[in-house]
Amino acid sequence: MQKREITILGAGLVGSLLAILFCKKGYKVHVIERRPDMRNANISAGRSINLAMSHRGWQALEKAGMKKDLEEIAIPMYGRQIHNLDGSQVFQAYGKNNEAIYSVSRGELNKKLIAAAENAGATFTFNAKCNKVDINSNILQLEVDGIAKTIQADLLVGSDGAFSSLRSAYTSLDRCDYQQFYIGHGYKELSIPNGANNSFLIEKEALHIWPRKNYMLIALPNIDGSFTLTLFFPFNGEPSFASVQNDEEIIQFFESQFGDAKKIMPQFLEEYKTNPTASLVTVKTNIWVYQSKSFLIGDAAHAIVPFYGQGMNAGFEDCAVLMDIIEKNEESNWETILQEYQNARKINGDAVAQLALNNFIEMRDLVADPIFLERKKIEKEIGLRYPKEYLSVYEMVSFSHTPYSVALGTAQAQEKLYNQIINYGGDFFENLKLDKFIAQLNTWIAEYTTEAQKIMANG
Amino acid sequence: MQKREITILGAGLVGSLLAILFCKKGYKVHVIERRPDMRNANISAGRSINLAMSHRGWQALEKAGMKKDLEEIAIPMYGRQIHNLDGSQVFQAYGKNNEAIYSVSRGELNKKLIAAAENAGATFTFNAKCNKVDINSNILQLEVDGIAKTIQADLLVGSDGAFSSLRSAYTSLDRCDYQQFYIGHGYKELSIPNGANNSFLIEKEALHIWPRKNYMLIALPNIDGSFTLTLFFPFNGEPSFASVQNDEEIIQFFESQFGDAKKIMPQFLEEYKTNPTASLVTVKTNIWVYQSKSFLIGDAAHAIVPFYGQGMNAGFEDCAVLMDIIEKNEESNWETILQEYQNARKINGDAVAQLALNNFIEMRDLVADPIFLERKKIEKEIGLRYPKEYLSVYEMVSFSHTPYSVALGTAQAQEKLYNQIINYGGDFFENLKLDKFIAQLNTWIAEYTTEAQKIMANG
Repeated sequence: MQKREITILGAGLVGSLLAILFCKKGYKVHVIERRPDMRNANISAGRSINLAMSHRGWQALEKAGMKKDLEEIAIPMYGRQIHNLDGSQVFQAYGKNNEAIYSVSRGELNKKLIAAAENAGATFTFNAKCNKVDINSNILQLEVDGIAKTIQADLLVGSDGAFSSLRSAYTSLDRCDYQQFYIGHGYKELSIPNGANNSFLIEKEALHIWPRKNYMLIALPNIDGSFTLTLFFPFNGEPSFASVQNDEEIIQFFESQFGDAKKIMPQFLEEYKTNPTASLVTVKTNIWVYQSKSFLIGDAAHAIVPFYGQGMNAGFEDCAVLMDIIEKNEESNWETILQEYQNARKINGDAVAQLALNNFIEMRDLVADPIFLERKKIEKEIGLRYPKEYLSVYEMVSFSHTPYSVALGTAQAQEKLYNQIINYGGDFFENLKLDKFIAQLNTWIAEYTTEAQKIMANG
Repeated sequence: MQKREITILGAGLVGSLLAILFCKKGYKVHVIERRPDMRNANISAGRSINLAMSHRGWQALEKAGMKKDLEEIAIPMYGRQIHNLDGSQVFQAYGKNNEAIYSVSRGELNKKLIAAAENAGATFTFNAKCNKVDINSNILQLEVDGIAKTIQADLLVGSDGAFSSLRSAYTSLDRCDYQQFYIGHGYKELSIPNGANNSFLIEKEALHIWPRKNYMLIALPNIDGSFTLTLFFPFNGEPSFASVQNDEEIIQFFESQFGDAKKIMPQFLEEYKTNPTASLVTVKTNIWVYQSKSFLIGDAAHAIVPFYGQGMNAGFEDCAVLMDIIEKNEESNWETILQEYQNARKINGDAVAQLALNNFIEMRDLVADPIFLERKKIEKEIGLRYPKEYLSVYEMVSFSHTPYSVALGTAQAQEKLYNQIINYGGDFFENLKLDKFIAQLNTWIAEYTTEAQKIMANG
């Protein structure tokens, strides 16, 4: 059977990985990218310059034969290093078994994926802006190096990010439920430079957080010893990007809130004033695929906020799941394949969007909220007593491939469990009541998951 | 001071009315319309062929000097004529003082508005498709009678409906929260022809409803004695457009559900099979205006479902409120005028969208739900005892210009009141307890309204 030709819009992380995976299956793949080739140009993708790779990301990279390559540039982070307002620090491990998430340079990862896709046979057209997609004919109106060009796609893929042009065409379809919304916080990137001989000035193998209730600063390590910091801060209110603007306000803000970091951030004032303030969007849509002609993947289908470090991981998992579905269907019926893909992934895209929004609150509250800390203590205790029966939601999301929708159902079930424990009082752990509740937990998880999946499948 | 030139996208009801209002203020107005001139062509606007004009609509028409003209083609409907499954009928008056809403032909109304706008000095370009709007330069790429044309707008208005091209350009702006969603019901138009000598075969001065819990049929009178019927029916499930398809199924469905209507619907089978099934969208966005350059109005800003008969009324009220704001500001600062316009209307657009969704449930439940009927009885009793203090939400929406957001707050406050009455038991009306609650009602309304407005202003 003749294999279809794949045209991929967007040579970002997901588009490039997908190109590799399709090439490995013998498909002819062409990738169209709006920006110049990032291997030659010093450009950022308009996005955070590093990211946290976890289990789902690694699994998809392994499928693409890329895992080894990436291990060279990945730094394990075994937990959160919390920086309190008084300068004290606390370390919270992410997993029970020394699991880590990995700090990776977005640019380096993207370049390696593009190079690997080319090696696997994919062709790339850079500087190619897609002005219009006709989803019925699959004819694309491009502007390549400023010159108008029309191309005819066979199977078209929209991996063109949160502002996808393919998705934009889908939203005109009858009964397309579509939503984009921004949170009230923006972000700005800052840095801690490396020390002498590329040494790390703060703990290397951790994700650093300065939680300050309504805002936070985080830091991820880079292989040259530097750290990339991100300040998540409200656009308006007190304090906010609007209220902290002049030199005095900025210095006073960093001095009072991030005193320990400020000492090793010689450029913070310049960076705060010069670096752009970016916004954070969540995107949901109920049309991921169109007949047998095209589909959305990654941020184009489910842009999410970055607080669970799952944006890239979710997009990579989309790719891996799609490949599984293609294998199962023997590439005979693309309408069926694409429908199965949407059925499998739409509920999980919506679920990870919700998990990511929820985790922002968790991260900001890490220190400030005593109820939250009490809950963390209980969770740790339960995890130690029931290492097999009990996975925290964080472990599920980051160290397993349990569907995100199940993780969301688990979050609700665990919430119920904690409330019962807290209401029961202090000796809950002493008698054997907990066994009963742990046994019940899986029933609750199944119930909440079914309910959440039903809502997400319809909306 | 030189008045700005107004370019209006869309010669529908709202665009045409706005053209008249701007002309009356001495503005130069040009209207661009995708379809042919409906005065020469027998086309529908792709929308329901009649609509219910209520107080807000009349008020705006009066401002435009159009009220008299329209009275000729409007049929008053003083209440709902309920058709029960057993063939019995009940009449429910809409107001306490013989108020009516008015059945008007959408096409006739639109033609009269276009003609009046031309008389007032507005120019129209028909058959002009707007392919692209650059919201910074206000340059429009049109296709007029198939020929490409570029025009430069000064102040641009998007009254181009639920699928507005101007709004589509706005959604790419940073921090634009945008949402479109469809309900699970579609609609199909049917008809009851007129009798001998243009007589009406069912009660003329009422809005007829066949409420059947999960779906309903409604009928509005036309001046020629016929009625336009609309079946609101689920797309899927049992029964639904999907399950009622062949002749036998259609006949059996109408026979068992709308037996009295079927007798006077000679064309129902043909109409059901031939007329399109249309979908029902709600649109919300937080960007209604862009600097001093452009703004959205009517469905383009707040497409809603038709169940409160308020789509056109809300759009006309947008126009009237905008004119008031222009007058207040002496046309000096358009950025201020447009911002005031958004502040005034956005919360009310969101509120009427919610009221319209809620009213679908009310209309379908009219007969079937005993709790709902008990509540209607209590409402009527309160209205009689407190004719001045107590307006039903329906009266507020249809017979007053109370802001929709206040009507939404009132709906919540009245819900609270009814629950207290129902929980209190039977002798609530006998002692003087009710006085106390009625006195409290305004406080509750204010509280709920403030809360609802805050949420809607932010999202």
